[in-house]
Amino acid sequence: MDGTSDVIVVGAGVIGLSIAWRVAQRGLSVTVVDPAAGSGASWTAAGMLAPVTELHYEGRELLALNVESAARYPAFVADLAETTGMDVGYRRCGTVVAAWDAADLAALRDLHAFQVSLGVDSHLLTSRELRAQEPSLAAGLPGGLWAPGDHQVDNRLLHRALVRAATAAGAPLVSARVVGWRQAGERVTGVLTDDGRQFSAGTVVLAAGAWSGVTDGLPDPAVPPVRPVKGQTLRLRGPRELLGHVVRGSVRGNPVYVVPRADGSLVVGASSEEAGFDVRARTGAVFDLLRDAQTLVPGLSETEFVEVSTSVRPGSPDNAPLIGPSPLPGLLYATGHYRNGILLTPLTADLVTGLITGTGAVPPVCDPQRYAAEEART
Amino acid sequence: MDGTSDVIVVGAGVIGLSIAWRVAQRGLSVTVVDPAAGSGASWTAAGMLAPVTELHYEGRELLALNVESAARYPAFVADLAETTGMDVGYRRCGTVVAAWDAADLAALRDLHAFQVSLGVDSHLLTSRELRAQEPSLAAGLPGGLWAPGDHQVDNRLLHRALVRAATAAGAPLVSARVVGWRQAGERVTGVLTDDGRQFSAGTVVLAAGAWSGVTDGLPDPAVPPVRPVKGQTLRLRGPRELLGHVVRGSVRGNPVYVVPRADGSLVVGASSEEAGFDVRARTGAVFDLLRDAQTLVPGLSETEFVEVSTSVRPGSPDNAPLIGPSPLPGLLYATGHYRNGILLTPLTADLVTGLITGTGAVPPVCDPQRYAAEEART
Repeated sequence: MDGTSDVIVVGAGVIGLSIAWRVAQRGLSVTVVDPAAGSGASWTAAGMLAPVTELHYEGRELLALNVESAARYPAFVADLAETTGMDVGYRRCGTVVAAWDAADLAALRDLHAFQVSLGVDSHLLTSRELRAQEPSLAAGLPGGLWAPGDHQVDNRLLHRALVRAATAAGAPLVSARVVGWRQAGERVTGVLTDDGRQFSAGTVVLAAGAWSGVTDGLPDPAVPPVRPVKGQTLRLRGPRELLGHVVRGSVRGNPVYVVPRADGSLVVGASSEEAGFDVRARTGAVFDLLRDAQTLVPGLSETEFVEVSTSVRPGSPDNAPLIGPSPLPGLLYATGHYRNGILLTPLTADLVTGLITGTGAVPPVCDPQRYAAEEART
Repeated sequence: MDGTSDVIVVGAGVIGLSIAWRVAQRGLSVTVVDPAAGSGASWTAAGMLAPVTELHYEGRELLALNVESAARYPAFVADLAETTGMDVGYRRCGTVVAAWDAADLAALRDLHAFQVSLGVDSHLLTSRELRAQEPSLAAGLPGGLWAPGDHQVDNRLLHRALVRAATAAGAPLVSARVVGWRQAGERVTGVLTDDGRQFSAGTVVLAAGAWSGVTDGLPDPAVPPVRPVKGQTLRLRGPRELLGHVVRGSVRGNPVYVVPRADGSLVVGASSEEAGFDVRARTGAVFDLLRDAQTLVPGLSETEFVEVSTSVRPGSPDNAPLIGPSPLPGLLYATGHYRNGILLTPLTADLVTGLITGTGAVPPVCDPQRYAAEEART
């Protein structure tokens, strides 16, 4: 046995690391295993913290989860800053949604009514108010929405800070890939890694993002229903004053957003494709993002083109995460966060910590057992 | 004195290195000085060898030079392969020019008549012939041109081979920036570098591309009239069978080309901007290249997006190069190659070698003295 700890976390993205950090803070010993920490969706994400403007009609159950996690962000980043001395770019900038044409504005009005019915803070903007709020938007856009509570964090800084925080809390990072699972009967008792080592623990948390569904050697019934959904983002660099808020919209039906960092960087996202684990940047997706983003913010054409980033999000059958017990004792899930992984990081860490320390339960919307219950019903 | 040689070449792009190689082959000692060999236009270029399809109405004097250099390519790369063992991707693939609309086709027909009047090998294609020649072209393009003699070379491999050839011939590469010039009276006798060294030579060749006009310490009358013209290219990767020939066209008046390498790489180029020495990739230029290239070759959208490359070409007042004596004895120019640097590499090397060994002269079209003569006339 190469290591025994209370908890093993498989996956060192923001989800896995925040769990490791929080659990280690409670005095438990934690080992984190990942062959390439933070190289997945945590790296490619744009860092929008957008419970309101990510809300879709079918997503009302997820809304409470997203709102709750957004509410925990200020304390989460403050705690992280205290631990690590790092500023992770949490920016209370609000989000503007620009309508692209009259039909899009009509759809936004309906969405706004739905949002208001759920009690979230969202305001309709006239064309004039829209440009007053964000003068770099294209002239002639017919109106939009203002979601003052939809903020952002720099996901790459967040990941770096979480590496430091988890390490400082005594949760070492093992740079290896999980290729097998130790079991005692049904119970999961540890993992085997591709460098031939074995680790055991009382609890194993599967937090491997899109790769959670393809972890070698996990018995079939314990494989979570998570699939890779390819996403591309672009990094640009422009004048700091170009945008003051997150800007998003739907141009000819294609969703696009631009997240302005405090240093003048701009993240443009995001494509969404079902392409397995192919994380090569696709030319057509780069083009579509540039076209749609420039349509909303023409000044982007004069920015510096810095980077294309591609990864796979962990999609789930109902787009809500899987947080909680797996079918096997000893194995917890913290995966399937799809488009909301950065946003749901503080809450996920707290929920999993509560389960491990026996001090909390998870809400039904993210309980992995809901799929089994669903199957039993039908 | 940190080094004395027969010849110093300032600049280790393909022009400077090919001169160094050829001169060293004649038994002269050569020193090449460059702070970042091959990081400029030699790296960003697409490697088209296109005397015919680069021909413009005002460029008939340049045509003979381009045709002559293209004719020297087979022997040049064969010699290089023999010396270095390297294949530099010289590919006799021919070039297709696609007309974008009827007006563009009419312009191509006029250009074809001009080309034929100058005796070059160029053929009009009907819409059907165009797609038969290159099936990946967009449907409905009205016709085009076929220039069977416009080929390509992999400019990055070419540069790497030239580094090896020059080194093997005994021309060492000094990694430093020229910050001053040694003179004896009018005569240039060497250079000073930013690491405090001094080098002397009987002849100094200025082959610093776009930077030839900003070399510190050169007396004003000896500064060549070369300006930076920013250019961006994209590297994509697709199926090897996507394109069989270089494809170029002018979409809504914007020139664009796609150069397919044998390994499935594709180089898309090139923007053209006057932006000083700002070599940051501009988002709008990336977008325009993608838009125009995809308009001609829709299948590019499914390729992998690999790289954006930006550099500055050495533009000259009449777009022809400056090859030959400067106003100062001891100093030769080999610069100002603008869009034809890769193409003109073999001929430039031969012309400069001829001047240095006293066995040749340069044609008037590229003689740097033509500007002084022009001024004297007006």
